[in-house]
Amino acid sequence: MTSSTTRGALPNKAATVAAVVPTPGALAHSRPLSANDVRVTGGFWASRAATNRDRTIPAGFEQLQSAGTLHNFRLAADSAREGYRALGMMFDRPFPFLDSDVYKWLEGAAWALAFAPDDRLPAMADEAIDLVERAQRSDGYLNTFVQVLAPGTEYRDLAWGHELYCIGHLIQAAIAWHRGRADDRLLGVALRAVASVDRELGPGRREAIDGHPEIEMALVELYRATGDRSALELARALVERRGAGTLGVGRFGRAYWQDHLPVRAAPEAVGHAVRQLYLDAGAVDVAVETGDDELLRAVHRRWRHTVASKMYLTGAMGSRHKDEAFGDAFELPPDRAYAETCAAIASVMLSWRLLLGTGDPAAADVIERTVYNGILSSLSADGTAFFYVNPLQRRTHRTWGEPGTGERAAWYACACCPPNLMRLIGSWPQMLATSTEDGLQIHQYATAVVRSGDLELKLETDYPWGGEVELEVVASNAEAWALSLRVPAWCTDASLRLGGTEIGRRTDDGRSIVERRVWQPGDRLTLTLEMPPRVTVPDARVDAIRGTAALERGPIVYAIETADMPAGVELEAVRMAANARPNDVPRPDIGAGVVGLTVPALADQSPIELNAIPYHAWGNRSVEGMRVWIPRAAR
Amino acid sequence: MTSSTTRGALPNKAATVAAVVPTPGALAHSRPLSANDVRVTGGFWASRAATNRDRTIPAGFEQLQSAGTLHNFRLAADSAREGYRALGMMFDRPFPFLDSDVYKWLEGAAWALAFAPDDRLPAMADEAIDLVERAQRSDGYLNTFVQVLAPGTEYRDLAWGHELYCIGHLIQAAIAWHRGRADDRLLGVALRAVASVDRELGPGRREAIDGHPEIEMALVELYRATGDRSALELARALVERRGAGTLGVGRFGRAYWQDHLPVRAAPEAVGHAVRQLYLDAGAVDVAVETGDDELLRAVHRRWRHTVASKMYLTGAMGSRHKDEAFGDAFELPPDRAYAETCAAIASVMLSWRLLLGTGDPAAADVIERTVYNGILSSLSADGTAFFYVNPLQRRTHRTWGEPGTGERAAWYACACCPPNLMRLIGSWPQMLATSTEDGLQIHQYATAVVRSGDLELKLETDYPWGGEVELEVVASNAEAWALSLRVPAWCTDASLRLGGTEIGRRTDDGRSIVERRVWQPGDRLTLTLEMPPRVTVPDARVDAIRGTAALERGPIVYAIETADMPAGVELEAVRMAANARPNDVPRPDIGAGVVGLTVPALADQSPIELNAIPYHAWGNRSVEGMRVWIPRAAR
Repeated sequence: MTSSTTRGALPNKAATVAAVVPTPGALAHSRPLSANDVRVTGGFWASRAATNRDRTIPAGFEQLQSAGTLHNFRLAADSAREGYRALGMMFDRPFPFLDSDVYKWLEGAAWALAFAPDDRLPAMADEAIDLVERAQRSDGYLNTFVQVLAPGTEYRDLAWGHELYCIGHLIQAAIAWHRGRADDRLLGVALRAVASVDRELGPGRREAIDGHPEIEMALVELYRATGDRSALELARALVERRGAGTLGVGRFGRAYWQDHLPVRAAPEAVGHAVRQLYLDAGAVDVAVETGDDELLRAVHRRWRHTVASKMYLTGAMGSRHKDEAFGDAFELPPDRAYAETCAAIASVMLSWRLLLGTGDPAAADVIERTVYNGILSSLSADGTAFFYVNPLQRRTHRTWGEPGTGERAAWYACACCPPNLMRLIGSWPQMLATSTEDGLQIHQYATAVVRSGDLELKLETDYPWGGEVELEVVASNAEAWALSLRVPAWCTDASLRLGGTEIGRRTDDGRSIVERRVWQPGDRLTLTLEMPPRVTVPDARVDAIRGTAALERGPIVYAIETADMPAGVELEAVRMAANARPNDVPRPDIGAGVVGLTVPALADQSPIELNAIPYHAWGNRSVEGMRVWIPRAAR
Repeated sequence: MTSSTTRGALPNKAATVAAVVPTPGALAHSRPLSANDVRVTGGFWASRAATNRDRTIPAGFEQLQSAGTLHNFRLAADSAREGYRALGMMFDRPFPFLDSDVYKWLEGAAWALAFAPDDRLPAMADEAIDLVERAQRSDGYLNTFVQVLAPGTEYRDLAWGHELYCIGHLIQAAIAWHRGRADDRLLGVALRAVASVDRELGPGRREAIDGHPEIEMALVELYRATGDRSALELARALVERRGAGTLGVGRFGRAYWQDHLPVRAAPEAVGHAVRQLYLDAGAVDVAVETGDDELLRAVHRRWRHTVASKMYLTGAMGSRHKDEAFGDAFELPPDRAYAETCAAIASVMLSWRLLLGTGDPAAADVIERTVYNGILSSLSADGTAFFYVNPLQRRTHRTWGEPGTGERAAWYACACCPPNLMRLIGSWPQMLATSTEDGLQIHQYATAVVRSGDLELKLETDYPWGGEVELEVVASNAEAWALSLRVPAWCTDASLRLGGTEIGRRTDDGRSIVERRVWQPGDRLTLTLEMPPRVTVPDARVDAIRGTAALERGPIVYAIETADMPAGVELEAVRMAANARPNDVPRPDIGAGVVGLTVPALADQSPIELNAIPYHAWGNRSVEGMRVWIPRAAR
């Protein structure tokens, strides 16, 4: 590994700047591009990135200050024994996992800075990194909760203590600063922390695991960044030890923390959704780096089952509030959807690893559906408030209220979701494209420049509001290579023209248009993904939404909300007309370029026209009723 | 008060033997009869009472022994400081509310013995009562958790400590032994415990309340039994103090323990369902004894809203697992129904008080619906295993499982439900009839003898399987009096014949047939409640069951379950035929006299005949899929 400690350096030109970079020997279908080589230059995602950098991440830093999360590192650095700050309690003690908020924030800041420079973020990050460095004990141990409130209990409460979980997030932040900023200060901290974990729990030591998986994927990435195989072996051990019941039954049973069955044997996603999805992401990483095809196939199989039976239309996952858990297959209530923002993000992280490892195009579909709907819904229009849960229905008349499920909040006692969102949006461009020996694969559409070796492509599009993507070959070489353009599963009419000539078309369930040729600089292509509005009827096995339909257009899931209802008409009185055909309507009031939908409906027996907006934009006006699945009139 | 301490005495002839006996001056529509005067002599309820006495209550005593719940009283009696036994933890400490299991068991035993003598129960009860007496401190304080594990913290953790909750159950047990067995040992304990509470929290003392209402109704009953007005004043204070936020926000917000608004102001039932319903039961008791008509109307109004929008078809209440809470209005998922047995029992306790206080016949309907469906479902056919939650749907294929929601269990770490069921079944006959100055009201139908003063009626019926009730006037007096026979809301064709002559008929929503005359001993009446099978379509506002229908017959809600499905047909593939007409079919395999239903359906596209059994009997064969609400074919 490189270990130069250069503050505020430019992106690391030597490394592939990305969160997930399999080694050359890994099981892989395709390779990630470096963030340096995927530059979003305009449109929807440039705007989102700017909001993330200019508003969301700075606001997050303020919250970390005012909530005391950073202060706790100061306490640990000073060997203090009191003054620990937490906004929430778990089992009558302060939340033990708050360090991870700082690490995720740091990761988000690194990716945002890798995308574009900023005046303010480096100083904020320096302050945080400095605190993290100072808080670490000389033996490498780092966890402010234990250091301040419970010294002597290091690695004792693995079930609930979240020590390894926090170190996992530390590692991911360190990787982001290492690759994205060539800044190895955090990497040094992470390596010392991992050595501490390894001494206690490494192969041949105590056969234990953390109650919250996360460190597994981080350790594999550490191996990838440093070549240190012991990190990979530790990750493999933590994956393989799972399912032996060492965590006990806890409050919610062994399945809650996926300790009920071995990772390669468990048939379906169960228990706490974020735990399951982080674990599976780590298992994919372990599998591809150790050549464990059986493990890769087991996770892929479980993921397919999840996508088919436990994923909401918005890509959200986790239908139970009680234990933040997956429900039974097809148990997908829209109103009581837990749909934690972190679970949707974890799903994208897993899907991206599966896309790299297996090439399954459905993984790119899941990423698209989840990011545009179940993840972006978390963030307020102004970028400074967050949903923790993302239900698909909210009744106009609610009972007295349930903490944490009302309006978007500026922060949470358990603030896992906001900084997770910061790092997801910061790293989104990394999932836009991949390369293989045979060429380039475009998975997501944005106005961007994409480079890989000698090749350079320019993309321009109004996506997700329009389905036309203009592509220009800026640079190429003399050899034939394949340009692969993903056709999303929702698109049943896609065509590719070169100049004025159609050279590809998809009207079936083929998932990509692939054109292999010797490309010339200046070649101009137009990909057209027809995106008429759709009325989506649910799977008959989803009991909770029988007799309803949803509106979609392109990758966007729509919702109706009280703010758009005609005066005197309550959301709950509405039925979509049978055989209703929705139409596009510009909604500049919701955002630049936003396309809304209208659809004929009945309010009681009176015909009305419903106005639907993108689900991800709901709750930015009044926060009253909302629904994605709209009851349908019988005829 | 009487204070004779007579072990194993006969029922107290001086008192009205009942759990709820308003004073003569209370706001009241009608008066309860003494359990001595309502004797179930055969049929459905005699069999249930026998099972309760012969199997359920003795099995409960064994569980109280083996779980250590009784042992904890022994520890407290011996001033021990360790060895406390609990099967479950709350916030990293043993459950603090286990004493109440013993008290509820004792109450159940008292009501069972008031109904019929038994060889074994008195000795068991003596052992328990002796332990309770010995455990009480000389200052009257009694709570084994605090005495053994946390002495010095008396009445300090009112939010979660359940001290008053436990004393409330102690009082109710004491009342049952006082009235039902003329045994005042527990009453002495209860009076000393209440004096201890009163010194700490009585009017003019600390303005605090318990996190779990229960003691309010018990205190009012103590006042009724002893004439001690300070008990009523304490109850009134505890009701009036609620809504001031003194409990804090806790884990689930102020509404969880109904401390968000004053009891007389809160518009709807919210938060923890058992807490809300016990609180409202106590508020009715306070209201009727203090002449507080405003409070009575407020609770009655809230109850009507609950019944209209937050009650399951089975009478069950509480739709959220997370906080065991009421959901929003019309948030009634069948699969994720929490539907705790205790909440259904609490609903019956509240409804009975409203029936006495207001005469609202809908209260008797709720009692009937809830007892036959949402409560009896808890108990296994053999009487020794219990559901804690009573969902209306269970998928054939479940995920890894969720503790406490699988098969009926012999006991629970939090064992509130089993002994609550014992006391409910033991006291059920008390709700069969009431009296007014003008006559007798029959609210529930069973083979029984009912007396009130000079009047005596004999009832014979196959209810709930048949709707004919033969009534014979056994004794009467020379004056005219009104016999009121409730016509359940489900019944649209009810007639009353005297000899061969029809003297009353109801085909509308009139709720009773009332016949006022000078009755002669030997008069024989036949009440016919037509009970053809019904296809029940849900309220359109209940999103979770749109497009389904349920089967009912008389007071019984039906369910289909895997054990009755044709080979190779999965429950989830079934659609009830449009315009399906169900038919009766004898089901001796389910129980003596049980009427099942058949109904035409489609499995995929093939016509089949579905067999439905009473919901309360589900899960006694295989425990696989079950559903009350069956999807309907479009046409």
